[in-house]
Amino acid sequence: MTPEKIASLSRKEREVLCAELRDKIIKTVSANGGHLGSNLGAVELTVSLLSVFDYTKDKLIFDVGHQAYSYKLLTGRYDRFDTLRQKGGVSGFPRRSESPYDVFDTGHSSTSVSAALGFARARDLSGEDYYVVAVIGDGAMTGGLAYEALNDAGHSKTKMLIILNDNEMSIDKNVGGLSRYLKKIRISSGYISAKRNTESFLNRYLPNLGKPLVRFIMAIKDFFRFLVNRKHPSFFDDMGLVYYGPIDGHDTKSMIKAFDAVKDINKPVLLHVVTTKGKGYEPAEKDPADYHGVGPFDPEKGVVKTNSLTFTTAFAGALVDIAARNKKVLGLCAAMAQGTGLDLFAYKFPSRFFDCGIAEEHAVTMAGGLAASGYIPVVAIYSSFLQRAYDEIIHDVCFMNNHVVFAIDRAGFVGADGHTHHGLNDISYLNAMPNMTILVPRDYVDLRNCLNYAVNKCEGPVAIRYPRGKSFYDNNDLYSDPDDVVKPHIVSSEGRDYAIVTIGKMCKTGQDAVSILSGKGFKGIHINLAMVKPVPESIAEMIGNDIRVYTIEEGIICGGAGESISRMLHDSCSGVDVTVFGVDDKIIRAASQDEQLRECGLDADSISSRISADLN
Amino acid sequence: MTPEKIASLSRKEREVLCAELRDKIIKTVSANGGHLGSNLGAVELTVSLLSVFDYTKDKLIFDVGHQAYSYKLLTGRYDRFDTLRQKGGVSGFPRRSESPYDVFDTGHSSTSVSAALGFARARDLSGEDYYVVAVIGDGAMTGGLAYEALNDAGHSKTKMLIILNDNEMSIDKNVGGLSRYLKKIRISSGYISAKRNTESFLNRYLPNLGKPLVRFIMAIKDFFRFLVNRKHPSFFDDMGLVYYGPIDGHDTKSMIKAFDAVKDINKPVLLHVVTTKGKGYEPAEKDPADYHGVGPFDPEKGVVKTNSLTFTTAFAGALVDIAARNKKVLGLCAAMAQGTGLDLFAYKFPSRFFDCGIAEEHAVTMAGGLAASGYIPVVAIYSSFLQRAYDEIIHDVCFMNNHVVFAIDRAGFVGADGHTHHGLNDISYLNAMPNMTILVPRDYVDLRNCLNYAVNKCEGPVAIRYPRGKSFYDNNDLYSDPDDVVKPHIVSSEGRDYAIVTIGKMCKTGQDAVSILSGKGFKGIHINLAMVKPVPESIAEMIGNDIRVYTIEEGIICGGAGESISRMLHDSCSGVDVTVFGVDDKIIRAASQDEQLRECGLDADSISSRISADLN
Repeated sequence: MTPEKIASLSRKEREVLCAELRDKIIKTVSANGGHLGSNLGAVELTVSLLSVFDYTKDKLIFDVGHQAYSYKLLTGRYDRFDTLRQKGGVSGFPRRSESPYDVFDTGHSSTSVSAALGFARARDLSGEDYYVVAVIGDGAMTGGLAYEALNDAGHSKTKMLIILNDNEMSIDKNVGGLSRYLKKIRISSGYISAKRNTESFLNRYLPNLGKPLVRFIMAIKDFFRFLVNRKHPSFFDDMGLVYYGPIDGHDTKSMIKAFDAVKDINKPVLLHVVTTKGKGYEPAEKDPADYHGVGPFDPEKGVVKTNSLTFTTAFAGALVDIAARNKKVLGLCAAMAQGTGLDLFAYKFPSRFFDCGIAEEHAVTMAGGLAASGYIPVVAIYSSFLQRAYDEIIHDVCFMNNHVVFAIDRAGFVGADGHTHHGLNDISYLNAMPNMTILVPRDYVDLRNCLNYAVNKCEGPVAIRYPRGKSFYDNNDLYSDPDDVVKPHIVSSEGRDYAIVTIGKMCKTGQDAVSILSGKGFKGIHINLAMVKPVPESIAEMIGNDIRVYTIEEGIICGGAGESISRMLHDSCSGVDVTVFGVDDKIIRAASQDEQLRECGLDADSISSRISADLN
Repeated sequence: MTPEKIASLSRKEREVLCAELRDKIIKTVSANGGHLGSNLGAVELTVSLLSVFDYTKDKLIFDVGHQAYSYKLLTGRYDRFDTLRQKGGVSGFPRRSESPYDVFDTGHSSTSVSAALGFARARDLSGEDYYVVAVIGDGAMTGGLAYEALNDAGHSKTKMLIILNDNEMSIDKNVGGLSRYLKKIRISSGYISAKRNTESFLNRYLPNLGKPLVRFIMAIKDFFRFLVNRKHPSFFDDMGLVYYGPIDGHDTKSMIKAFDAVKDINKPVLLHVVTTKGKGYEPAEKDPADYHGVGPFDPEKGVVKTNSLTFTTAFAGALVDIAARNKKVLGLCAAMAQGTGLDLFAYKFPSRFFDCGIAEEHAVTMAGGLAASGYIPVVAIYSSFLQRAYDEIIHDVCFMNNHVVFAIDRAGFVGADGHTHHGLNDISYLNAMPNMTILVPRDYVDLRNCLNYAVNKCEGPVAIRYPRGKSFYDNNDLYSDPDDVVKPHIVSSEGRDYAIVTIGKMCKTGQDAVSILSGKGFKGIHINLAMVKPVPESIAEMIGNDIRVYTIEEGIICGGAGESISRMLHDSCSGVDVTVFGVDDKIIRAASQDEQLRECGLDADSISSRISADLN
């Protein structure tokens, strides 16, 4: 739809449009999976935004991007929206590579205000006159990055609009002092009541409006329904922002009037909009946490919860068992109790569970403090998000050798969420940290044994990284003593034409490659590792001299496990030539996990072809 | 001094003690270098803290640690304080390895509240009863990590004391909305005036005190001088903290009374203390920015500013020249305009300069927004601090191929500040990022040419990392075309017994090693690289086949330049055996930069010995 077309819609037409968008979102997400609740909550907000701002000219930035589907549908991607999150299709997140109207890529939380401030300052430097709008949720507002940006924006006095999309939760129920504060505002404001000092506001921020116009505006009471609640604007006002709200985020008329009224204020404005997550789809409204990110489901029946075993549920169960026996074990997460499986721990041991908000850095540093006090915090964070705490892991955990256990879910490729959410860098950056132990379980039994080893046998920091989804293995016959999980295991030994060293779940790929190579007459040795830092010295003896070695991991090559193994073998063996299979530093977009692995040559066919070519 | 001894001092005795501490700090720092202004500002604060809290039992955490010298002097390190910042001596920062009374290591900014919350929660879980105190500066409060922790602390209701040590600046003049807010408090409060509602405060937070006691306390007006200014407590109160202040941070009597009064409040309390940076040493009070971190100086004369050439000043000059010719160039820093040399840029191009506060993450993401708008932001941050923005560099710069230039000062060993401040990880983690170009100038000419190349020839993200201090080289005869800086240069070519590839400043070490080896009869080829990502393909041809190769860099081995070179040669040459010289993932504590290099075998003697052993 053109900006002019959207701007000219009547209230009734907007209602029809919103219903249509909602329908399209439910249909597409139920078919392809995706982020449902937050997108349904932002339909009216997006239509209202595009009624006031010109998406071909103004810069609209959606924090995280969990609410950007309506924006995509309205800005030229309606017809191909059924390709959502599929290989070559419409991304689940704003992407500059996809549309000129996605001005800044998002995916990780709390970046929008910083990016918007960059756009606003660039506009001022160039003397241009577009509007800059950041849409940020209350959950994302708990991230320190958002605060740093608000602090700078408040100082800058740069004209920009920050829309706080307050749905009272991020992925899980929102936590923290700020959340309590927002709740106080919503309750005490009613949250739609009239603002008393409208006139003084007009005179202060729009001094050139002229008295007659001010009187005219004052007469239209409804126009200023949004200028309410000056009782509690302190937090944002103290930061130097102009705060208004809260207003009803499902009432397009109010929002359009509000946007029109504040858009020319020559300061950073924070407009507080209240929305309902899952709005318009009853099951999602009732159980928003279950409808945050979903797989395909039947829209008539809603999402059916299954208790099927995954690495996440295996971790959840193992942690609860270990924590029952060791009272020092604590559970920490960053607004992802359900996603990480820590909700089970929280249910069983509420006093030993801490949800830190979308604040990975704080979670890690606080874990350092808990560990320094003799506790064993298990910090469960997705791989892609943990990298935000790179510095804190080194500085507040590793340097002091604090016994913190990192449970790193979604390591490797994540599939449909695409490149911003892959967990490919963790082994590489954890390898660079002193005192760190890194464990990579190949299956559920390994995971349980790794966790037990990390909690009860290790002294310093330990990371356990495991993939999204299911294990290839139903059982595990690699070892009898659970602590042997950290020792290298010879999976098969047919000859010495070559050696394969696989890491974690890539054991299966290695087995398949061995089988293909065996069919071609090449007989090798296959070793699997769960511990990759330190590299177990015994693999040097297992591998011996004068042999080609191939390492296989689902992570970046640079600094990864293969390079550590290569270094170790270079120093300990002779005549050993090591080739590392992993992910080069390229960007692998949304697709299935298997497709992503194939794209990087990390499938059994590609690997065995490369090896047989070398051996011929 | 024992806690009892400190607690029993009279006001007069405390004054004498403070004078003595101040004298010792000035003497030691003027001899050894160190952090002066912030330490002088915190003398009375520390004495007051230790008069109320028992350092053998309570947990006192000093954010960053720039103000912890008095604490060290009072907790058993007076006699060996003259070894401050020297090899094997007293660290310039709190270190658990040094004293049981340093409960948590600090060095990077804004970690103290998170760590303290960890200690406080651990205490509550264990049913113990010690006090937990975090001392944090107003500068550190601009870091998002501190906000994340305040948000969680406010939510937790856990008993802890956060002392905001407000000296109106961090390293440079403090910026941001929060800073303005604190200033407003200081001005409008006067900043010592009587609190009106003392009684309601007592009833609210200490309900079991009993009416007679309340009346007694009320009578001692002076006791409550600190309970002032309830006009502007909003920011911190909104976070769920109990705010009191501001009080005079150089009046021990007031502080002791304040600490005594708030220490048993069963909530997180934020006590706002105002101090003067450099207090008691006139030159430092007058020019606090010049006395933040200093080298040795004559205390009678003060620090004498020199304009001697260093990598920092070379960068500053080059940037100003390049920015004069290219109007799109902007300068960004994180509260370190002087340290990074950007103060010169700020002076020349004030509207194109942005100091983001101690907010490395925001600086990087905002740079992404500026670059997406067509500007070329040069983000100047010390190597060790830039790692806090690891995620933002990937997510907000590299994935979108935004043209952001990172000017990374203090790369490699930093000497006396010790392990928390080394810049050893940058090549490794930047190597793991898609689209990133990495340049490592060996001298000032290289630096200027690299910066020009990065700004005017590159399209995506570029990092230029350069060491602390001076170059070994006065001039540069490596190439005539400035853009040739990115090509590998053959420094010497005597034979093919071995090849050395050096990175940046290690060129000099390589030359020395070549000369030693030459004396032993081994003739090799020496190549120097300024561009390490991508590894220039031409080095494969220069090196050829069947040769031992040694790479030398001042950075961690894991994921570093040597490993990239090794991978490239493995794929392009045959019979090449690569040994990587660099820093293993161990902790290298304070010493001189040369001592630190030797400790890691990165000196010409160690390197040439290893090579000649291989060749014999």
